[in-house]
Amino acid sequence: MLPTVLRSSRFPVYSKPIVTLFLPICRRFYSLSAVYTPVTPQMDAADASEETLRGVLAEKQASVDAQAGVVRKLKAEAAAKADIEAAVESLKALKIEVSAVAKRLQAVVSSSGGGSGDREAFRQVVVNTLERRLFYIPSFKIYRGVAGLYDYGPPGCAVKSNVLSLWRQHFVLEENMLEVDCPCVTPEIVLKASGHVDKFTDLMVKDEKTGSCYRADHLLKDFCKEKVEKDSTLPSVKVAELKHILAVLDDLSAEELGAKLKEYGITAPDTKNPLSDPYPFNLMFQTSIGPSGLSPGYMRPETAQGIFVNFKDLYYYNGYRLPFAAAQIGQAFRNEISPRQGLLRVREFTLAEIEHFVDPEDKSHPKFVDVADLEFLMFPRELQMAGESAKLMDLGEAVRKGTINNETLGYFIGRVYLFLTRLGIDKERLRFRQHLPNEMAHYAADCWDAEIECSYGWIECVGIADRSAYDLRAHTDKSGVSLVAHETYPEPREVEKLVITPSRKELGLAFKGNQKMVVEALEALNQAEALEIKAALESKGEIEFGVCTLGKSVIIKKNMVSISMEKKKEHQRVFTPSVIEPSFGIGRIIYCLFEHSFYTRPSKSDDEQLNVFRFPPLVAPIKCTVFPLIKSQQFDEVAKIIARSLRSAGISHIIDITGTSIGKRYARTDEIGVPFAITVDSTSSVTIRERDSKEQIRVSIDEVASVVKEVADGQSTWADIMWRFPTHSASHVDD
Amino acid sequence: MLPTVLRSSRFPVYSKPIVTLFLPICRRFYSLSAVYTPVTPQMDAADASEETLRGVLAEKQASVDAQAGVVRKLKAEAAAKADIEAAVESLKALKIEVSAVAKRLQAVVSSSGGGSGDREAFRQVVVNTLERRLFYIPSFKIYRGVAGLYDYGPPGCAVKSNVLSLWRQHFVLEENMLEVDCPCVTPEIVLKASGHVDKFTDLMVKDEKTGSCYRADHLLKDFCKEKVEKDSTLPSVKVAELKHILAVLDDLSAEELGAKLKEYGITAPDTKNPLSDPYPFNLMFQTSIGPSGLSPGYMRPETAQGIFVNFKDLYYYNGYRLPFAAAQIGQAFRNEISPRQGLLRVREFTLAEIEHFVDPEDKSHPKFVDVADLEFLMFPRELQMAGESAKLMDLGEAVRKGTINNETLGYFIGRVYLFLTRLGIDKERLRFRQHLPNEMAHYAADCWDAEIECSYGWIECVGIADRSAYDLRAHTDKSGVSLVAHETYPEPREVEKLVITPSRKELGLAFKGNQKMVVEALEALNQAEALEIKAALESKGEIEFGVCTLGKSVIIKKNMVSISMEKKKEHQRVFTPSVIEPSFGIGRIIYCLFEHSFYTRPSKSDDEQLNVFRFPPLVAPIKCTVFPLIKSQQFDEVAKIIARSLRSAGISHIIDITGTSIGKRYARTDEIGVPFAITVDSTSSVTIRERDSKEQIRVSIDEVASVVKEVADGQSTWADIMWRFPTHSASHVDD
Repeated sequence: MLPTVLRSSRFPVYSKPIVTLFLPICRRFYSLSAVYTPVTPQMDAADASEETLRGVLAEKQASVDAQAGVVRKLKAEAAAKADIEAAVESLKALKIEVSAVAKRLQAVVSSSGGGSGDREAFRQVVVNTLERRLFYIPSFKIYRGVAGLYDYGPPGCAVKSNVLSLWRQHFVLEENMLEVDCPCVTPEIVLKASGHVDKFTDLMVKDEKTGSCYRADHLLKDFCKEKVEKDSTLPSVKVAELKHILAVLDDLSAEELGAKLKEYGITAPDTKNPLSDPYPFNLMFQTSIGPSGLSPGYMRPETAQGIFVNFKDLYYYNGYRLPFAAAQIGQAFRNEISPRQGLLRVREFTLAEIEHFVDPEDKSHPKFVDVADLEFLMFPRELQMAGESAKLMDLGEAVRKGTINNETLGYFIGRVYLFLTRLGIDKERLRFRQHLPNEMAHYAADCWDAEIECSYGWIECVGIADRSAYDLRAHTDKSGVSLVAHETYPEPREVEKLVITPSRKELGLAFKGNQKMVVEALEALNQAEALEIKAALESKGEIEFGVCTLGKSVIIKKNMVSISMEKKKEHQRVFTPSVIEPSFGIGRIIYCLFEHSFYTRPSKSDDEQLNVFRFPPLVAPIKCTVFPLIKSQQFDEVAKIIARSLRSAGISHIIDITGTSIGKRYARTDEIGVPFAITVDSTSSVTIRERDSKEQIRVSIDEVASVVKEVADGQSTWADIMWRFPTHSASHVDD
Repeated sequence: MLPTVLRSSRFPVYSKPIVTLFLPICRRFYSLSAVYTPVTPQMDAADASEETLRGVLAEKQASVDAQAGVVRKLKAEAAAKADIEAAVESLKALKIEVSAVAKRLQAVVSSSGGGSGDREAFRQVVVNTLERRLFYIPSFKIYRGVAGLYDYGPPGCAVKSNVLSLWRQHFVLEENMLEVDCPCVTPEIVLKASGHVDKFTDLMVKDEKTGSCYRADHLLKDFCKEKVEKDSTLPSVKVAELKHILAVLDDLSAEELGAKLKEYGITAPDTKNPLSDPYPFNLMFQTSIGPSGLSPGYMRPETAQGIFVNFKDLYYYNGYRLPFAAAQIGQAFRNEISPRQGLLRVREFTLAEIEHFVDPEDKSHPKFVDVADLEFLMFPRELQMAGESAKLMDLGEAVRKGTINNETLGYFIGRVYLFLTRLGIDKERLRFRQHLPNEMAHYAADCWDAEIECSYGWIECVGIADRSAYDLRAHTDKSGVSLVAHETYPEPREVEKLVITPSRKELGLAFKGNQKMVVEALEALNQAEALEIKAALESKGEIEFGVCTLGKSVIIKKNMVSISMEKKKEHQRVFTPSVIEPSFGIGRIIYCLFEHSFYTRPSKSDDEQLNVFRFPPLVAPIKCTVFPLIKSQQFDEVAKIIARSLRSAGISHIIDITGTSIGKRYARTDEIGVPFAITVDSTSSVTIRERDSKEQIRVSIDEVASVVKEVADGQSTWADIMWRFPTHSASHVDD
């Protein structure tokens, strides 16, 4: 049932399908103006050589920097909202251009690629094993299943439960996080506020005759890839054009996508029928709360909103102290248009999310020192844009240098690294990639993804974002409930504050029915504007004043408004906390873990390859098996006694008295990753065999449960245990 | 936010609203014929005295027994399906009459009632504490919430996670159950097969002007209760009539309910507008899978179906051996018409369900001996119908006597008892109630509910049902995939089998286009019918044969069909396993646990009452607190060292260095049920105080984490610990 779609690029991270399954990125939607950058002639001609691209990139990056300076300046000057917005839009457009060029550069640099056939074959073996041993089951299989829905069968479910329990231990317990558990059914207003109702969409096209639906970007992407890879007659100008489309695919508007589909004559893949124009399809499962049909609701697309709407209570629960973190584990839903890539892109999945609320003016973290010395693969924006690979970097230094925006963000990056490697993710195939300019919302301070490499390429499994005050502000605006924090000053501070007092009487006499609009416009003045007007009134006695809501200017006289800067005593600072959000796609982590844990080794008796999952004991679905060496009532009894002691120690186990050869029994349990096998070969002591080394030790029956518990809980390692007990090399060898 | 609706009866178990929140009962729907039993005159006159009722009950029970005999006979004779169905319908109607009388008898016997005011006051205190300390939060509170949706705040979430982890330990690990994890989004066909699409409904009425919706039975119930309780002028005939309605409320059809609403002139409670006729409203949240709008889906109303549809794979996983059990923990959804009773009736909730598959011919259980000696409150059908109370009974004896249908069912009843009491449910307020005849589907072999008494009355929290082969058969029929088990005989057995071989040639010549229908009708004959035809053909050479699908009879001649009994060797038996299903409403169990754990004790310093939750350490949301006795940098340091050692031992804790009085700090943590408080009063040793006894012991700093772990994990009790360490009675007394 697993898909065979393989990502051609070595940096699949660039293509939206795989990067956005479940992630906070879904809150990163901001409207894009039409930004398709026509391919410039010189780029075509050279088929975008590395050097040319680097030149273009440097040029475009300089424009971005300049435009960012403009935005900063406007904000500092408290310029008109419309001006700032226009500048931000231009900045976004420029960032997208930079990203597109950077992606093409990456593609050129890493064009070596290769090994995709091997990876597919490897995946096929892993997935076959996972399905045969019921780690996964396509849901509702007897009814032919539903695309994008999978069950965890017994060993998969046990692994998931172990991963979640380690997550709780590693994050919730370690930081005294406030864990909450909110419903999946969510009323519309909450998701209106978060932006999901309006913007959580993918662009869809319909087969005009059959009504079948497709993702518009998928069709265009498939077309371009197919052409580039298989059509050797294609002129190089055309190749460059198609490659460019692949690079900017995520940023195309509905109109642009539609135009390209038409231009290339792309039809419905199954029927060759014509397609509709692309239009947005909201990815949330919609439902109705209660019987009236008047309360629309959705199945939550993420768990984070449940935490944000509870901020006020949680802040109170924490004794009105910042920083603090809340956490939630739960189901999230995404009604994919046409799910591909099997277990990595599903319609229902488990998320584990943390929202760490912090004072925006102090993002230091007291425990950062604990992770500062970690060194692992980081892939900051600069490296990506220079077409380089991820590099081993020191976390402390990355924060010091400002590569990572702040200590708290850095702390969580470090903790995520420790969590994933503790689970058994290979640290050589784990990197932290910083978002490119166009991937990040303008309000986000910084954003990094933990990406794990598997047979599908580099997969985003954890997103770690500093989302600033965006979410709390959105809910404050929509609900009218102020989601803010307070800092009480040790002693009151004197501050200068702008005070605008319109004289309602004078304004009423002058403007009658329009008075209200004029008052509001005056009260909305920012400091720079107000002081300008004050100066004008003082020098000239009156000023022409534009009132947007009236659509015209009016004359304001000196007696109509008093403007002054007054000194006030403030006892506290009121502010909206920033939120730093690590968000874990549990299913994706588990799938990657399966690939990283899988290996084969030859069977001794025949040419067959035996499958093994090298799960760490903490993660293994079952901690040990109990086998009587031979069929014997006495040994069966001993096996049952051991099973009972394992049960009361809380150790999951299987007892296998089928009497198959011991080698076969080992192979059977290696294949579901059971780390320890207890073989009963006497009535006083037994052997314990470790899965990967196949080493065996001899332990007395009384001790065996506590020894297994010790290694299964992670208090000791197998190496520790090996020292304490005699090794056993005699009889029960593998097949 | 909690409701103040109080159940008037001491046996609220009889009224549907409270009994069917989430339960397998939702699969117990079978259509009821019109069964409203008019109140007989002699019953009115006596206002249904206990004696009269007992007489009527005995009479009606005799009719049920007789009719049950009829059904058994018809089945044994393999009578026509229509005849059997008619007899079953009559039996159901009779059972409902019996139940109605039994309920009235119960009501008469237990009419003492009382204490409802106290219970409401108690509930108010508990619920206030639960909300103030964020055990629960009404979901989406800043948007004014949604009826029937609640969040678990930090301590509630921790309790839930502890309860689920104990559940896994107690059931899944203990029995090596196969745990699975299936999606909530479910395609229509699955819930068509299970019956939910057609029958998972409540009867609803609409305010004809505003469109507001109400549950029809709630309105009728409220009306009857109000009248009976408050209208002292009501003639006794009328009182008896209203009481009878309350007794049969759950069994009324839409027409009957509508007629009663009209008769009593019941209008919309909020507006007094007229109401529509009652009509069924499906309680599932509906949605659409994928973008086409052509694949309707629902949010699952229970987790069980995910297990049933996987039976084939799970049976394979278990090495084709029976019995085995599968388990699932997950969210379930029920779109209530108008949720009342707060935390007990919600629109989304966590279920933990077990499906134990067993050979219908052998329902013994090897571990039944482990629970056979348990003695607890049971409430078999006979006691209920005799108007008596639940009685302490011996589990072994209940199974031996046949009160409980079989050993496996008995085993799970015992295990559920152990689980609930281990959590902290008061065994005096826990009973196992057998379903009355009309509560149970005709296919169910037996069904018991674990009911816990709380301020709302006796609440069904766990259902334990022997559902026979119903669910697997339903999915076999719908999917065409055979969900069966095999028993291979040690050696082949000789059996006589009916063999019907229609001669297609002769039938074709005789019936042309109708041949297919005739062939099918012949092949569908049961043994009795076939042998009858065989005899007729042998004696007369031909027979008139009715073919339903043709709507007429045809003449069958001897050469058209061969019918014989042949001896065959059979190597295996193929059968549909029975399923025994313990189904746990986790939220309800937790709510009852909160009530059972709550008590108040006077504060020493003032008249205030202090709230305490006496959670067992295993369940407590936080295992211990760490307080420096006085504000001191030295003590703060020690506190931090202890916190670190607790963290690495995996013990959840709070460190409180606010410097409030020690008494206040104890009170604050008693109120969320923290069992142990560590007070730092020196740099070498600390005191540990137990929440309920307030006893204190002195323990060295090095040992404190391991001591707390020992009691928190349940390896030792506080009493064990008390022996080992010096008690401390000096300074840190409670307020």
